[in-house]
Amino acid sequence: MTTVGILGGGQLARMMALAGAPLGLRFLVMDTAADACAGQFAPMVVGDYRDEAALTEFASRVDVATFDFENVPAESAEWLAGRIPVFPNPRALAMAQDRLAEKTLFRELDIPVPAFAAVDSRAALQAAIAEVGTPCILKTRRLGYDGKGQFRIKSPADLDAAWDALGAQATTVGLIVEGFVAFERELSVVAVRSREGEFRTWPLTENWHVDGVLSASLAPATADDALIARAVDHARKLAEALDYVGVFALELFCRDGELLANELAPRVHNSGHWTLEGSETSQFQNHLRAVLGLPLGDTRMLGQACMLNWIGAMPDALPVLDEPGGHWHDYGKSPRVGRKVGHATLRADTQEVLAEALQRVGVALGREAQVAPVIERLRG
Amino acid sequence: MTTVGILGGGQLARMMALAGAPLGLRFLVMDTAADACAGQFAPMVVGDYRDEAALTEFASRVDVATFDFENVPAESAEWLAGRIPVFPNPRALAMAQDRLAEKTLFRELDIPVPAFAAVDSRAALQAAIAEVGTPCILKTRRLGYDGKGQFRIKSPADLDAAWDALGAQATTVGLIVEGFVAFERELSVVAVRSREGEFRTWPLTENWHVDGVLSASLAPATADDALIARAVDHARKLAEALDYVGVFALELFCRDGELLANELAPRVHNSGHWTLEGSETSQFQNHLRAVLGLPLGDTRMLGQACMLNWIGAMPDALPVLDEPGGHWHDYGKSPRVGRKVGHATLRADTQEVLAEALQRVGVALGREAQVAPVIERLRG
Repeated sequence: MTTVGILGGGQLARMMALAGAPLGLRFLVMDTAADACAGQFAPMVVGDYRDEAALTEFASRVDVATFDFENVPAESAEWLAGRIPVFPNPRALAMAQDRLAEKTLFRELDIPVPAFAAVDSRAALQAAIAEVGTPCILKTRRLGYDGKGQFRIKSPADLDAAWDALGAQATTVGLIVEGFVAFERELSVVAVRSREGEFRTWPLTENWHVDGVLSASLAPATADDALIARAVDHARKLAEALDYVGVFALELFCRDGELLANELAPRVHNSGHWTLEGSETSQFQNHLRAVLGLPLGDTRMLGQACMLNWIGAMPDALPVLDEPGGHWHDYGKSPRVGRKVGHATLRADTQEVLAEALQRVGVALGREAQVAPVIERLRG
Repeated sequence: MTTVGILGGGQLARMMALAGAPLGLRFLVMDTAADACAGQFAPMVVGDYRDEAALTEFASRVDVATFDFENVPAESAEWLAGRIPVFPNPRALAMAQDRLAEKTLFRELDIPVPAFAAVDSRAALQAAIAEVGTPCILKTRRLGYDGKGQFRIKSPADLDAAWDALGAQATTVGLIVEGFVAFERELSVVAVRSREGEFRTWPLTENWHVDGVLSASLAPATADDALIARAVDHARKLAEALDYVGVFALELFCRDGELLANELAPRVHNSGHWTLEGSETSQFQNHLRAVLGLPLGDTRMLGQACMLNWIGAMPDALPVLDEPGGHWHDYGKSPRVGRKVGHATLRADTQEVLAEALQRVGVALGREAQVAPVIERLRG
């Protein structure tokens, strides 16, 4: 009997446990919150990720550890890796926690990135704005996600406001200025690499964000073979450079047929949730297969799939459950502004059938704006 | 937040909980064994199904109750139904617990059945053998499953041996003699009926048993439309007669193009396990949708699927995990002779691709005999 430990007990850990149960696995989840939603289906250790007593208990009860959350302190991951196998390795985690290290690696691997510059002082911010140009975005190097810890700089006149907002973090988590990319589309490669180095990707996914949070994903993305091959090649180079084991997502901006790497998420990813019903093997099961040294499962798609995120509170389930290809995912969380509480996946054999289903669901839920860009892409 | 109570904590309850989690449901499982495998993913009440204190606790913590096990005492189901909604209704459960009541209902509904006769004494057994003819099978009316509580009568000379084996149960659980059917094929209809009376079936499934225990299932069964329509019609008549809510399986013998009803299992069923990956909506999620009054999910198949049961101990997983359409289900049970400990489902787009996958898996696991009849059917 193998027990998999998961640091972080949110919806990713929850879906991992549900997908891993058929492999005969047991799970132990560690989270700072006793009501973390993965705890509804797996036993938990509640504690701070820096609490050595809690980490010791966690390590003593699991055979291998992984993450649902990339902001676990890198030193905690290192500490664990000295005691039990940890995948992905803490180096990959540390790299992905630091926007500067991440973008530097992209550049080293000849993966195109938007302009960027490190910021450790007000003067450095001024220089960075001049170098990168406006509009640009000032971000914390660490601990930012879903649009948090960011300040948009429209012109050099925004220097003071930006420094007021985030300057205090220049010498703590660090800051970076990134060029604003007027992209046409956001894409992601969800990929998995095994312990033996086998590498597979799911079909390229197109993503739409609202206020910095993922709103909808469509797979397969409509894209030509050359662009797909480039995206997959970028992901493969990163996985190999990091000796990455498990699932990760590489987020990309697409502009004039050019791909610019945005970030690497070192875990199963929101833009891969459609794989639960839309692929022969889900990202959750393949992550576990990789972590455990088992053969990777087939990543091919079955038809077309669109994932819609539910933020803040769950909408009425009935319009989705009424759809022939409608699948509902309620994470069992209490409502909270900005919180990811669930998602739906609509699956169909053709683009037009999927567009019609999205139209019905959008109207029934009063969420026409959420489905509109996906429908436009499907019919475009 | 809705909590679903499940009486019985085996693999069916376990797979139900895993399939129901995405609906935002919580589960509470009641079982006599503290180590029941559903308890790995759901909280449990451990107690005898006749223990009123345990039943009271169970009822107080759930919003609705269902079964993973048809031999829950009918009076316990009735007791619960007086306090909380229980689906399927206890009358359906009671009927399915009694082979004589079940076969009598089949006959009343003009569903063909093998010859049968009730037995409550040695003299009645003698008369039953004469009426039904040999070969025939003496069975307990209640509490038999997977070939347990059965005695095969090859000729009238077996009267004494049969009576010695099971006669003591004539006045306790009761006995029935059933005519032996030299069937060519065993089929099952896995069906679901909603609270509102909507009725759906998954594609007809062909089943192979070894020593009375399911060994392999293939869907869709190769059968002409008229036979499929008759099988579905039988299932629909039964569901309506019993005002059945939830998933059930109707097992049928096929002989000379004729269908004979064998038994109704009032729960999700081993011959429907392939629906987890082979259908848009699994039997487990549709059972919960029905029980909760939610819209039923689409039951159409995606390609071809074959389920192989693992009895006694789990074989090596790798040959199945290596298959592109290979899906593994380890129930987390300890090995025991005759125990259902897991299954695998192989999915493919065509019959020939499925046959080739079965061939590889059968050879790799030394289980050629288990896959041979399925391969023969696929290539026949």
